[in-house]
Formats: sequence, C-alpha cells, structure tokens
Amino acid sequence: MKILLPDTVPLNPVLPKGWEAVTIDARAEIPAEHHDAAVLVVWGASRRHLVSAAEHLDSLQLVQSLAAGIDGILAAGFDPDVVVAAGAGLHSLTVSEHSLALLLSLLRRLPESREAQQRHEWSTELGGLQPLHPAGRLTTLIGARVLIWGFGQIGQTLAPTLQALGAEVRGAARSAGTRAGFEVIAEREVPAALPEVDVLINILPATEQTAGAVGREVLAALPDHALLLNVGRGTTVDQVALREALEAGTLGGAGIDVTDPEPLPQDDPLWDAPRLLLTPHAAGGRPVGADERITANLRALVDGQEILHVATR
Amino acid sequence: MKILLPDTVPLNPVLPKGWEAVTIDARAEIPAEHHDAAVLVVWGASRRHLVSAAEHLDSLQLVQSLAAGIDGILAAGFDPDVVVAAGAGLHSLTVSEHSLALLLSLLRRLPESREAQQRHEWSTELGGLQPLHPAGRLTTLIGARVLIWGFGQIGQTLAPTLQALGAEVRGAARSAGTRAGFEVIAEREVPAALPEVDVLINILPATEQTAGAVGREVLAALPDHALLLNVGRGTTVDQVALREALEAGTLGGAGIDVTDPEPLPQDDPLWDAPRLLLTPHAAGGRPVGADERITANLRALVDGQEILHVATR
Repeated sequence: MKILLPDTVPLNPVLPKGWEAVTIDARAEIPAEHHDAAVLVVWGASRRHLVSAAEHLDSLQLVQSLAAGIDGILAAGFDPDVVVAAGAGLHSLTVSEHSLALLLSLLRRLPESREAQQRHEWSTELGGLQPLHPAGRLTTLIGARVLIWGFGQIGQTLAPTLQALGAEVRGAARSAGTRAGFEVIAEREVPAALPEVDVLINILPATEQTAGAVGREVLAALPDHALLLNVGRGTTVDQVALREALEAGTLGGAGIDVTDPEPLPQDDPLWDAPRLLLTPHAAGGRPVGADERITANLRALVDGQEILHVATR
Repeated sequence: MKILLPDTVPLNPVLPKGWEAVTIDARAEIPAEHHDAAVLVVWGASRRHLVSAAEHLDSLQLVQSLAAGIDGILAAGFDPDVVVAAGAGLHSLTVSEHSLALLLSLLRRLPESREAQQRHEWSTELGGLQPLHPAGRLTTLIGARVLIWGFGQIGQTLAPTLQALGAEVRGAARSAGTRAGFEVIAEREVPAALPEVDVLINILPATEQTAGAVGREVLAALPDHALLLNVGRGTTVDQVALREALEAGTLGGAGIDVTDPEPLPQDDPLWDAPRLLLTPHAAGGRPVGADERITANLRALVDGQEILHVATR
C-alpha cells in the first residue's frame, strides 16, 4: 500500500508493515505511477494537485490534511467515500502564539511605541504611571471580556493563556455548553453578547454559513474600544465594514492574519486602515506533531479504528 | 493614627479603628501637619517627597511601596527601624503581559510585518509555509529554552504562560532550588547556562550587585539567535554592549522597557539599534490589588503580625 507525502514539509511517519511512502511535488499533478496510492497527505498543495488527486487516485481511502482548515480539499471533488481528516490541533500552539502576539501588541500599543522609538521620543503617554483601565481604550487583558468565536482546538489552547493573563474568556460555537472548562455560548446568542465583549477573537472556518459572519452588524454591536482578531479565514470578515469601523473609530483596533483574497491586492485600502495590524497568513504554516498524526491515522485506517478529526462532508 | 496615601493612584484601603487616611501630593514635600503619620504609602513619588518623609516623619513605622522595585525608597535615608514593604506581586500580571507582548512581537516579527504592511506588501518571507525552527533565527516559543534571571513574583507569574506556549522555562536566583514548580539555578551557574539559552528575561532589581549584570560577557555567551528582554531595571544592562551585540549580529533581538538613565536621552544611539524594541517604562505603572495589600499590611502592623514583602535593608 502506498502513502503520498508532500514535499512542502519534512515528514517521517512510522508506516504499517507492507506500506511504502513516496514524497511528491505538492504543487504539481499526481504522477501516473502513483495513481494507486491509498493515502494522500496534503500540505501547501496547489488546487491543480488536489483536483488531479480527486480525479485519478482510484484506490484512495484517506486524505490526511496537515492544515486546520480543509475548505480547499472539500472543494476539490473527492469521492464521498474517501475519508478526509483535518489537521486539527497541529496548529493550536502556533496560531495561539501569533494571536497573542497580535492582541498584546495592540493592547500594549507596540506600534505606537515603535514610532516613538523611531523619533527617539520617550513617550510619557505610553509609559510611566497609567490607569489600569483608561476611559475609552483597552490596554490590558486584566478584566477584559474575551469571546472566542469558533471554539475548536486553537481556541481551547488559547483560552487558558488569556485567562492566566487575567481575562474572562468564553467561547461561541454551534452548540452551547462547557468545553475545556470554558463556557461556550451558541452562535445565535452572539449578537446579544457582543455589547459586553472587549475582545472578539474570530477563529471561524471558511464555510458557506460563516461567509461575512463578522460584518457591519457585528462590528456595530461591539463597544467602540473593542479589539477584533481574525486568525481563521479571510472570508469570514466583511473587510469593507472592518475598514469603515476602524476609520469611524467605532472599533478600537484589529489584528488580521487572513484576508480575502490572499494575497491582499496592493491597492486595497484595508492596508492603511488605522489601528490595524495585518500579517500575511503567518499564524500557522508550521504543523507541529504531523508525523505522530499521520502515524496514528494510518494505523487506525489499517486496523479499522477511529480516524482522528474526520471532516463532516 | 494616620496613613498618608499618594495622589498618583486612586486608593481606598480598609482602615483599622482609630486610623485616618490623608491623600497628599506624591511629588511634593510632606506638609508639616502630616509629620505625625505612622504609615506612608509610596507610588510615583519624587525624590524630594521621599527625602522629606525620611527627614520629618518622626512617628513613621511603615513605608508601603506599591512598586516592585524599592531602590528609590532605600536611597532616601529612612531610619533603620522603619519597616519598608515592597509592592511585590502588584505588578506581576501587568509586567508579565508587557514582557509577553515584547517577546512575541520579536518572535513573530511584528515590526517587520508592520513595515511590509506600510508598503502594502504581502510578504511571503513573513507568512505562508514556514519551517518551525529556521536556522539562525528564533521564531516561536515552542521548544525555546527560556531563562528568567530574577525569579520573583513577576517571573513566577510569567513562567507558566511561557511554558503553556511550549517553552522550557528555568529561573535564576541567589539560591538554587525549585520555586513555583520551576527549576531555579543559582546566579553563579548563569554563565555556564547561557550557551543553551534561547531567551534571557532579565527581571533583576537595581542593587549594587546587579549593576551591569547583563554585560559584554553575558551577551557574548548567549547564542547569536538569542533574544534578551529587560523588564527589571535599566542599570542591570550594559547598554553599550547591548547595542554593539545587536549591531554585530551576535544577539538575535532585544525588548527593553527600562533604560539607564530614564528617559533615555534623545541622542543616545541605543534608540536606533537593529532588532531592538524599546518601550518607555510601560510594563508596570498600574498596581493591581493595592488596596488589599495596604489593608493587609496595616492590619498586620496594628496586630503585630507579619508584614508582607518586607525589604531586607
């Protein structure tokens, strides 16, 4: 049996007896001699690669993504009986780290500090004695009310760190309940919750339902001092509404790692929105624990056990 | 009995029976009608204020600082029988938050991202698929070896968060052991440990012993990719050696919230050192839990119980 590995990340999974691994170009079509593969591992694949796999891999049983978001795979047209497994959890630490970097940089006004530094200015507005909670501005996580919209592996990794720094953290997901020790509200309750949210962290996947989820109404319902992070998918935010809210001062700031489209066109006015930090899809991009995940799911496939993080299609 | 409160922060401690609280100008000399005070609370005080208190408050029993560093109070010349209590712990969350902001901003290259954003450039060097551990550069806390030099309340608050983000954290203090669940090495072991340190976080107090502690030798012993934070006191770092290490590329980057002197003079070349983030003593500046601390130590003073965080003089 054959497993195809992408050439976009070093991989060395443990293979079951009788299996062979072949590393192939993740940007190109699948070579004809590998159309017999049973498992395809996907990381940084081109659309062409995925479409050719969906068309030609007639013995395919499992597509193992190393990405948290699998919208590209779902769009490639694989047969319904091919199992698609998401790389959920492989990006929890890296995306949490980047989210914190963006959020703390906004809270602690590091871009303004950097500009003052470039002017050789020791700013008494930015340093020295300060109120803990100045009027109209959020400057600390202490006491901050954080809502993580899309409360999966990444959100559940990020939440305890925010809590340790003094924030009150809740999640929002399709169904309400308690997850990983945190209160989770149902998505339909989000609009009513927003006026009491200081930081909205968007980790929504890209689906038909989430397109433009953070739009004009959501942004208007947040307090003027609120901060928005988007480390999920660019399509979930209405970028025109975001820019207008920042320009109007009805949103305190935003940290955006994803845009729609990507790359963001050079002439898009979003680049210059005030109090916006924009990073070029830099939060993840480094699957952590990929070999262990591939090894486990290959084993599960062979043994007929449960495969981790199978996508609902 | 009288307690003098500074006008630099809103305070409302619970007073024992028979006590009165008076709020006074923390930048001015102590008014003659308050020379009978038994307790002085210090926050954002001028040198003049402290020297006048040391000279005139003949009934003084306790100086309660709300700052973590009490070098200014110790230098003011209070009688040896006056108890000086540090505001240890009141800045643990705020300084931890700022330390993380500086560190994550350096790791996740937010200043470079900001510059790319200003050029409207979607940088594939900063985003997209990346190695987890690129050669010669530290870009994540995952697997990073962190040494916190000065492992008091702030360090012990920061350490678990760094650990949760994937770092291996140790402390360094006067005596070795285990503190708050973390291995602490003795200060004399620091030089030998430095070649295996990816992030050195300096939270040393300003004392005669710590002056210039992070000097040429320490910086040379760190790996070239290492990052340095200083959120303690400016005097503990040799700023010329720091600038030279950054310019020579023998230090990966630095985040500095304190300098010597403060403000840093406008013509100091440190401002322009490469890969340096400089904030104007902005980490703390907001005591959290001050009322509770004053209430507890006043109660302890009256009852003859142990006063929290008494300074060794």
